[in-house]
Amino acid sequence: MNFASDNAGPVPVQVLDALARVNTGYAASYGADGVTAEVGDRLRALFEAPGAAVYLVATGTAANALSLATLCAPFQTVFCSEKAHIHEDECNAPEFYTGGAKLTLVRGGDVMTPAALRRAIEGEGNRGVHGPQRGPVSITNVTEGGNVYSVEEMGALCGVAREFGLPVHLDGARFANACVALGCSPAQMTWKAGVDIAVFGGTKNGLMDAEAVLIFDPDTPASSGFTRAQEFELRVKRAGHLYSKHRYVAAQMLAYLEDDLWRDLAARANARCAALATGLEALGLEIVNKSRANMLFFRAPLRAHQAAQAAGAVYHLWGNPPADPEALATARLVCSWSTTEDEVADLLAALKTAL
Amino acid sequence: MNFASDNAGPVPVQVLDALARVNTGYAASYGADGVTAEVGDRLRALFEAPGAAVYLVATGTAANALSLATLCAPFQTVFCSEKAHIHEDECNAPEFYTGGAKLTLVRGGDVMTPAALRRAIEGEGNRGVHGPQRGPVSITNVTEGGNVYSVEEMGALCGVAREFGLPVHLDGARFANACVALGCSPAQMTWKAGVDIAVFGGTKNGLMDAEAVLIFDPDTPASSGFTRAQEFELRVKRAGHLYSKHRYVAAQMLAYLEDDLWRDLAARANARCAALATGLEALGLEIVNKSRANMLFFRAPLRAHQAAQAAGAVYHLWGNPPADPEALATARLVCSWSTTEDEVADLLAALKTAL
Amino acid sequence: MNFASDNAGPVPVQVLDALARVNTGYAASYGADGVTAEVGDRLRALFEAPGAAVYLVATGTAANALSLATLCAPFQTVFCSEKAHIHEDECNAPEFYTGGAKLTLVRGGDVMTPAALRRAIEGEGNRGVHGPQRGPVSITNVTEGGNVYSVEEMGALCGVAREFGLPVHLDGARFANACVALGCSPAQMTWKAGVDIAVFGGTKNGLMDAEAVLIFDPDTPASSGFTRAQEFELRVKRAGHLYSKHRYVAAQMLAYLEDDLWRDLAARANARCAALATGLEALGLEIVNKSRANMLFFRAPLRAHQAAQAAGAVYHLWGNPPADPEALATARLVCSWSTTEDEVADLLAALKTAL
Amino acid sequence: MNFASDNAGPVPVQVLDALARVNTGYAASYGADGVTAEVGDRLRALFEAPGAAVYLVATGTAANALSLATLCAPFQTVFCSEKAHIHEDECNAPEFYTGGAKLTLVRGGDVMTPAALRRAIEGEGNRGVHGPQRGPVSITNVTEGGNVYSVEEMGALCGVAREFGLPVHLDGARFANACVALGCSPAQMTWKAGVDIAVFGGTKNGLMDAEAVLIFDPDTPASSGFTRAQEFELRVKRAGHLYSKHRYVAAQMLAYLEDDLWRDLAARANARCAALATGLEALGLEIVNKSRANMLFFRAPLRAHQAAQAAGAVYHLWGNPPADPEALATARLVCSWSTTEDEVADLLAALKTAL
Repeated sequence: MNFASDNAGPVPVQVLDALARVNTGYAASYGADGVTAEVGDRLRALFEAPGAAVYLVATGTAANALSLATLCAPFQTVFCSEKAHIHEDECNAPEFYTGGAKLTLVRGGDVMTPAALRRAIEGEGNRGVHGPQRGPVSITNVTEGGNVYSVEEMGALCGVAREFGLPVHLDGARFANACVALGCSPAQMTWKAGVDIAVFGGTKNGLMDAEAVLIFDPDTPASSGFTRAQEFELRVKRAGHLYSKHRYVAAQMLAYLEDDLWRDLAARANARCAALATGLEALGLEIVNKSRANMLFFRAPLRAHQAAQAAGAVYHLWGNPPADPEALATARLVCSWSTTEDEVADLLAALKTAL
Repeated sequence: MNFASDNAGPVPVQVLDALARVNTGYAASYGADGVTAEVGDRLRALFEAPGAAVYLVATGTAANALSLATLCAPFQTVFCSEKAHIHEDECNAPEFYTGGAKLTLVRGGDVMTPAALRRAIEGEGNRGVHGPQRGPVSITNVTEGGNVYSVEEMGALCGVAREFGLPVHLDGARFANACVALGCSPAQMTWKAGVDIAVFGGTKNGLMDAEAVLIFDPDTPASSGFTRAQEFELRVKRAGHLYSKHRYVAAQMLAYLEDDLWRDLAARANARCAALATGLEALGLEIVNKSRANMLFFRAPLRAHQAAQAAGAVYHLWGNPPADPEALATARLVCSWSTTEDEVADLLAALKTAL
Repeated sequence: MNFASDNAGPVPVQVLDALARVNTGYAASYGADGVTAEVGDRLRALFEAPGAAVYLVATGTAANALSLATLCAPFQTVFCSEKAHIHEDECNAPEFYTGGAKLTLVRGGDVMTPAALRRAIEGEGNRGVHGPQRGPVSITNVTEGGNVYSVEEMGALCGVAREFGLPVHLDGARFANACVALGCSPAQMTWKAGVDIAVFGGTKNGLMDAEAVLIFDPDTPASSGFTRAQEFELRVKRAGHLYSKHRYVAAQMLAYLEDDLWRDLAARANARCAALATGLEALGLEIVNKSRANMLFFRAPLRAHQAAQAAGAVYHLWGNPPADPEALATARLVCSWSTTEDEVADLLAALKTAL
Repeated sequence: MNFASDNAGPVPVQVLDALARVNTGYAASYGADGVTAEVGDRLRALFEAPGAAVYLVATGTAANALSLATLCAPFQTVFCSEKAHIHEDECNAPEFYTGGAKLTLVRGGDVMTPAALRRAIEGEGNRGVHGPQRGPVSITNVTEGGNVYSVEEMGALCGVAREFGLPVHLDGARFANACVALGCSPAQMTWKAGVDIAVFGGTKNGLMDAEAVLIFDPDTPASSGFTRAQEFELRVKRAGHLYSKHRYVAAQMLAYLEDDLWRDLAARANARCAALATGLEALGLEIVNKSRANMLFFRAPLRAHQAAQAAGAVYHLWGNPPADPEALATARLVCSWSTTEDEVADLLAALKTAL
């Protein structure tokens, strides 16, 4: 019963099969192969965005940082939540890739409200050349705190950005989980809401290492003056993220798209999480995040966590644990496509015993 | 008959098998898994370097740029050949990763002589704070021109670096091909010769996307003041090159090491190249690079190249092609593990017909 | 009656005289001249720091950013207050010079408490390679909010930094004003309290454009692995901050040190500010910053500010002004060496009338 | 008799007078003052460029690097001569300011021919995303080797750049000396020839520390996507090159423009250099650079140099001096506005004696 991360599980057999299927004969390198072309077409169709430019990279950090570098000049600032992965968990990757831009944190934890975003934007960019200039807004959905912005909430945040003429980046490391939870289309969650560049994450939802980046207006000038698509491509190469044997990263994404595998995997993870939530609430435990996909944060006495962990449950406590074993400690549980009903039941049983 | 690149072919079945083998249950993410640990131990044993720090990244550009950033402060310069991949084919990745260091080109094409290297080093770093400071020496073996430095030549180049107190980076994108061609041990080609950080390439020699970086003195201070190992790790993460599901990149490398697969694959490619060379010389054609592994450059009338390509041979002409179809044009032929004897025979036949 | 900034006034005649005095014959360029050498010796003596390395640059932003780049690797974070000049008013200069480090804001406005600093430090650097690593602490004295840290408070902040092994940078754009206000020695305000690199500002206190940077442990390895002094020098050159005709920047600093001019100028500014404070309090107006040197923030009805400004008073309102003319608005008043008693009296009279 | 550098001499009295003249009352800071505005107008008039944006910085390195950063994205390369100051003497400032662009050296010493420039441009930018993209051409006039490009030669070089759609930067550290030598107008040497951004150097020609940058098409998008003027301003601030007491740098430039002082100073330096050349040739010594302004390189037996230097002549030998005292060694002589006829005579006498 491992709930530590959606990075910890195996990949579905379809991914291995896809690798085997493309493993034949010669293919043009660096993305000029047919599999990559097919993935581009499929994603454009899925997102109802025939003009979009599509790229594949292997990590979410690369996908985010390359997207932000394309949208943000070095003397600008990115607006994101206090808990954004790009702020807390990428070892300054956005600062590195943008050439030294800043991140301005929107107060309020993992969820940005339109009002708080507006306040943050208004607080920057009004000191002439002295302060950083206003740059892109970065939204994560599912948020790092396990919350899901509705399509309307996405639209409202993008609307604030648009009001100030700022582009929007979507960190979609858990895009599939959010999309399934919302029951919306990929287009609704992205360009229809006002997103300019979206990361369509695959790794956390079952792939080995593949994330797609969709640039919905590829011909718009980028932060370098090249077009967004040109600049993204050049930055990918220059960062060492252009895979020579590109068909293997493309094959993963192809398997992901085939028969809506990405939806099935996410639905499975979300269902397990919902079952967990029901079970935890039945135990009288408080769940922190309200709008939810495959991840939840809950509070229990430290003692109970320790007992469950001793019984084999793998998950992380969040923040500084209290000194008193009876005090409430917050923990994070993440379900993935491979989480089983038995694992959920076992964890709930372990917690019940512990309480 | 595809001789365009050793990036164009498929991967051996052992690689797919290894992926399937590790695809079970949960594993700690970001390299804390057992497969990664095993790969580290195996590479330390193979290189007879029990103290080495070992990292895996997915591209040669990343491996090179991260290594150089660890060895080179922003106000230093890297010494490399005029044809170095880091200079010509990485879209300024070293400049990006080092934060703006320079590359000083050692005159003489793809091969550096100790005398030319010394001249280049003496030409920099003698203008106080006005010019760049002397930084690492970067050597590629097999060179970009298909030449192989002998163990003694490697030692002589490293000796010049050492004389000036400069560290040495080895771009080993074709490490296996060089090592097999030389009949030496990995240790002889690297730390015994004086190399500080070596890239042990896997992708061009049959893996999907896996390169190992060996830091032989991991506790030496790096360009940031952290130790080389610490800095390398931090730079990997901050560049988005730390894979969350690390077991899959590790599994590839494990397959590569198992039963000396890396040597077998390289030996196959080298043998095909040797057969090609014999055949071309029998046709009276000149081969440009003398010391050779899996890649050769040869001259033939432009007309002959065109005829061979029309007959299905896939390879690149090098430099600007002449206007006169009878004039000699240089072409590059690269063999990989998957090049067959038939392909070699077919190409030679096509050229023979064309001549 | 101009209280807009201590950048707005003229320079004392001694500065012009000093420029004229050195303007004779040839002098070695780039700081190898005798005037520069003398300034170094004088500053080492003044700071009781015979081993310190001393550099001159022309702006506070350059002095700060170069100091931070020397102390901070690109994957680290700088701890500073929410109102730090390096965060709000340098257009991402620290991010630029460090190669993409982050700034972590210590909550609490312009003044950092040891407890808040500790909390901020403990909040970073505990996520392995995922988050930024802990880097230097940056303290401004006089703070951007007009407050003065006592020698004991400086010591306590440095003590927290030292506890975590972090170096300390002092932004001393108003060093003289703080030092005079505290009645302490430059050494007490810097290395004796635990500061590693201090900026001894001259521009705001009467020079044209000259700031000294003192590196108290010049042989300590810097963020690049070079020594702090070597790296600082190289970064100065590479940023275009090394003046060829160095004697002219040195002459300014020499005039500043001669007969304690720096203290006299600061004392004058501080005295005017004290008179202003007394007068404002007599008018029943609230002064925001309690410990004070040459700058104060006070609250008055918006209407009163507008009337005073209409009467010729030049100063800035701070933050967003209220809509209601009767509502209180905060304003900043800055005195410089050239502020006269008449200007103070005139401003107080204008405000009295306006109220 | 100091011929070491045009950085070694004093400033003319007009510069000190100008500083005194502006040193009265309050002035808006950061360039919003009236002196700065006047300088802008004067330079626009002098260059017959009413739409140009004008900025002042204190060093040539800053002026060059900021200009290049405005014209060059991080994944591009700058074309310049092998001896360009930006390559040899700025400690990687262009690489730093551009965020890691490359410099591609045009073969042929300090002088670029249109043919060699074309060859260099054609050699880059033809490897897709693998190599750096073609960026700006940087021309120095007077060159670092003391040569002067004619207006026609400038036009031819700019013509090659234009043919490939590349912008042109002029390093005019010795702009006045070239302009006077050519007897042309500033407009002819710059925008009329095809220059996009020109540095109009003042420091080497008599100012303390002031260089003007003229952006002839300020509304063109810059490498960041902002306009060239916006980006330049933001980069200036973020690099710490925006002077708060801006009137003092502006006053220097104003004095320089008043009554064509800049021409007078340059004419004086050029005349001294011409006298030196005549004298050296009369001594039978070879002068290396043919088209000349205020700087010459000449060859004499090492022994003669040593004797002249022992007699008090101050100048630099160039390159590695020979071992044999009778062998020819190259030396550089630089005249400035303050070089006297006596100094010239004394140097020639000393060399005559030495020979």
